[in-house]
Amino acid sequence: MQDRKIPYKIYLEENEMPKQWYNVRADMKNKPAPLLNPGTLKPMTAQELGHVFCDELVKQELDDTTAFIDIPEEILDFYKMYRPSPLIRAYYLEKKLDTPAKIYYKFEGNNTSGSHKLNSAIAQAYYAKKQGLKGVTTETGAGQWGTALSMACSYFDLDCKVYMVKVSYEQKPFRREVMRTYGASVTPSPSETTQVGRKILAEHPGTTGSLGCAISEAVEAATTAEGYRYVLGSVLNQVLLHQSVIGLETKAALDKYGVKADIIIGCAGGGSNLGGLIAPFMGQKLRGEADYRIIAVEPASCPSLTRGKFAYDFCDTGKVCPLAKMYTLGSGFIPSPNHAGGLRYHGMSAILSQLYDDGLIEARSVEQTSVFEAAEQFARVEGILPAPESSHAIKAAIDEALKCKETGEEKTIVFGLTGTGYFDMVAYERYHNGEMTDYIPTDEDLKPSFDALPKL
Amino acid sequence: MQDRKIPYKIYLEENEMPKQWYNVRADMKNKPAPLLNPGTLKPMTAQELGHVFCDELVKQELDDTTAFIDIPEEILDFYKMYRPSPLIRAYYLEKKLDTPAKIYYKFEGNNTSGSHKLNSAIAQAYYAKKQGLKGVTTETGAGQWGTALSMACSYFDLDCKVYMVKVSYEQKPFRREVMRTYGASVTPSPSETTQVGRKILAEHPGTTGSLGCAISEAVEAATTAEGYRYVLGSVLNQVLLHQSVIGLETKAALDKYGVKADIIIGCAGGGSNLGGLIAPFMGQKLRGEADYRIIAVEPASCPSLTRGKFAYDFCDTGKVCPLAKMYTLGSGFIPSPNHAGGLRYHGMSAILSQLYDDGLIEARSVEQTSVFEAAEQFARVEGILPAPESSHAIKAAIDEALKCKETGEEKTIVFGLTGTGYFDMVAYERYHNGEMTDYIPTDEDLKPSFDALPKL
Repeated sequence: MQDRKIPYKIYLEENEMPKQWYNVRADMKNKPAPLLNPGTLKPMTAQELGHVFCDELVKQELDDTTAFIDIPEEILDFYKMYRPSPLIRAYYLEKKLDTPAKIYYKFEGNNTSGSHKLNSAIAQAYYAKKQGLKGVTTETGAGQWGTALSMACSYFDLDCKVYMVKVSYEQKPFRREVMRTYGASVTPSPSETTQVGRKILAEHPGTTGSLGCAISEAVEAATTAEGYRYVLGSVLNQVLLHQSVIGLETKAALDKYGVKADIIIGCAGGGSNLGGLIAPFMGQKLRGEADYRIIAVEPASCPSLTRGKFAYDFCDTGKVCPLAKMYTLGSGFIPSPNHAGGLRYHGMSAILSQLYDDGLIEARSVEQTSVFEAAEQFARVEGILPAPESSHAIKAAIDEALKCKETGEEKTIVFGLTGTGYFDMVAYERYHNGEMTDYIPTDEDLKPSFDALPKL
Repeated sequence: MQDRKIPYKIYLEENEMPKQWYNVRADMKNKPAPLLNPGTLKPMTAQELGHVFCDELVKQELDDTTAFIDIPEEILDFYKMYRPSPLIRAYYLEKKLDTPAKIYYKFEGNNTSGSHKLNSAIAQAYYAKKQGLKGVTTETGAGQWGTALSMACSYFDLDCKVYMVKVSYEQKPFRREVMRTYGASVTPSPSETTQVGRKILAEHPGTTGSLGCAISEAVEAATTAEGYRYVLGSVLNQVLLHQSVIGLETKAALDKYGVKADIIIGCAGGGSNLGGLIAPFMGQKLRGEADYRIIAVEPASCPSLTRGKFAYDFCDTGKVCPLAKMYTLGSGFIPSPNHAGGLRYHGMSAILSQLYDDGLIEARSVEQTSVFEAAEQFARVEGILPAPESSHAIKAAIDEALKCKETGEEKTIVFGLTGTGYFDMVAYERYHNGEMTDYIPTDEDLKPSFDALPKL
């Protein structure tokens, strides 16, 4: 069955691993629009951003011209604990689908946080430590980011306060214990511990929370305490920069074996994985050196790219954060509690939004029962139990491979398998018991949060 | 910090991976004693064993002369899905402990079953399929073996019935869902579905179950259904044979970098991991080619090697299985429900029992609060969240490294990190909340099950 030239798993050697992150903005003609100060509606200055973020991260956030940025030695050391991640040839899935397509996936789940989030968490914790801070605050949805950050903070001996979207907090008690193992404190959001949390609770009693709410709380907690800054696991330019390590390793592994991808697929919530996976490939595309089809896959229940508007919007529900120009469902949008797993952010990274608007990326949305069906099919042949988030990419990869089966084309498909589903068994159980349903918001459902978009 | 010659993680190339299992019995002068028929008290014949086990596995069980046995191509293919497992140099732990010791661990948790159990599960499922069976039955304690077997059966399209020790079934509902994802059925044991289960329930109402009970039920379920056989995840000679892949890879990785181990440490429940990890090293020791200190680490609450008797005993509580000569606490021994995690079997593999009796292995027992302390310390510096079982080995490795710190000796310590603790967060939570206690059975506690040992 196996093509003898290509091993089942490709691991780079330590000396083949990237030493620099790649900043795709440097090659973009249409740069992502700047963050705006919600008071003045002018671009946020480094000084203003410095109240919320670490200084070095502010620099990275604003730098849209430097293509390669050195990864500090301390971060490279930490990366060695769980990187390189394997690029796996999905021989078993190909066989099961009986497709001529060649499928590869970059598996980022082989670390205790269970996902790619650790790539940016360790970078952000490093810069916080370097700045002499006491700690950081953040939000987490499904819990992957919070777990990753708690590991990173433990490594650098930083305090870590996590606001966890209430519905996930209740569905995933074990996530909380992993974070506690690494010394973090975890608060369900919205909570009574912040002004903005109390306000949201008063306006929406019984709310199951949203990433947008949790961000507002975490930002308030950071900016009202001495020696703290806020860190974010997705959406921001700096996060996509750190996550470029995924794409750089993927490309190095493919190049090592002379393989050229045709289609690159990633799940998309805020864009951290997709932006990181595609970075060097998009760079080639922007420079006219190579062409790829790039597909973003999002949940039908939270369809920011496929049904959102490209507009300036608040990054959080409480409207305490800067505005970003992005594909958005409106900062008031809260996904149905019926929606399992992550990918529940109302907007999309400014970088990916711009690339999508420029026609350089395709997007599609998929319904969750079909996602779990793909997840189970994948698990049974490839062994790995995927996170629901990651399974959005699996679903699209299977669909593309089946198209190849129809046409007989031997396309090379690469997708990002962002993480494992060990903490998502409540959702798997609902799927097994036939209790999982699909929810697609109607235009009526979306109208209120669209209407509330800021008028600039 | 890093010794540049030794990478943080050593992965063998596909062509460096073992193609044969190693059967340590071939090099043992004192062979492990044969299984006895509980009716006749004579050694079990291949024909008798064939009612319970697959034919090919019976051959492996009885073969104590063939040193190397080819791994079938189909199993090698499956191994590629998650092997080679990395041999990791614990640079971060060494630094934290400030020890001159060099610590390596073989990490077997990077697969969805979360442990080394998959190495034997896939072999046993393969031989069952090859024999044309419909399915297999088994028991599972902490759930690692059941998960591994359900993955293996799914791969070969075999039915899989798992009897899960009741206390674990209740503490680990998500384990059940992972097994269901792979299509297995899971029954809490003791259950009303078997004669022996009903008998045990009548005698011990409210029992939390034991591996010994669950084995009895699984064997009954296999032998009373057409086209089924029973499979076991530990204790048996065949299992240690399959698990030798752990030790063979470990030795190949060490040899590749010219490293000679001084101390080899493994946690020990039934002996599957320890037996596999030490196999080729023990082979050298038996042939007089090299010497190693080999340490088995077991829970103080289930101390079969350190406090058990070396005697013929039943492998199961219901006394339906053959008798094995092993270090045992008596087949009636049930660990305190207070005991978290696996390693709860009343006996120890006949191979390891013989080697221990011959003075070729050391053994020690450790208390669980100290095990969780070691686990958390390890997680925070090495990233990986270890299973409680595996953490017994971590505890002993740390203790040995600290001895080196006192003496200044630069010993090389290798231990087996058998799996991950994602499904053990209830136990971690008890530890975090200060609710975990230690339980060491008194001599009085052990007396009844010792007294009930069969008189041969």
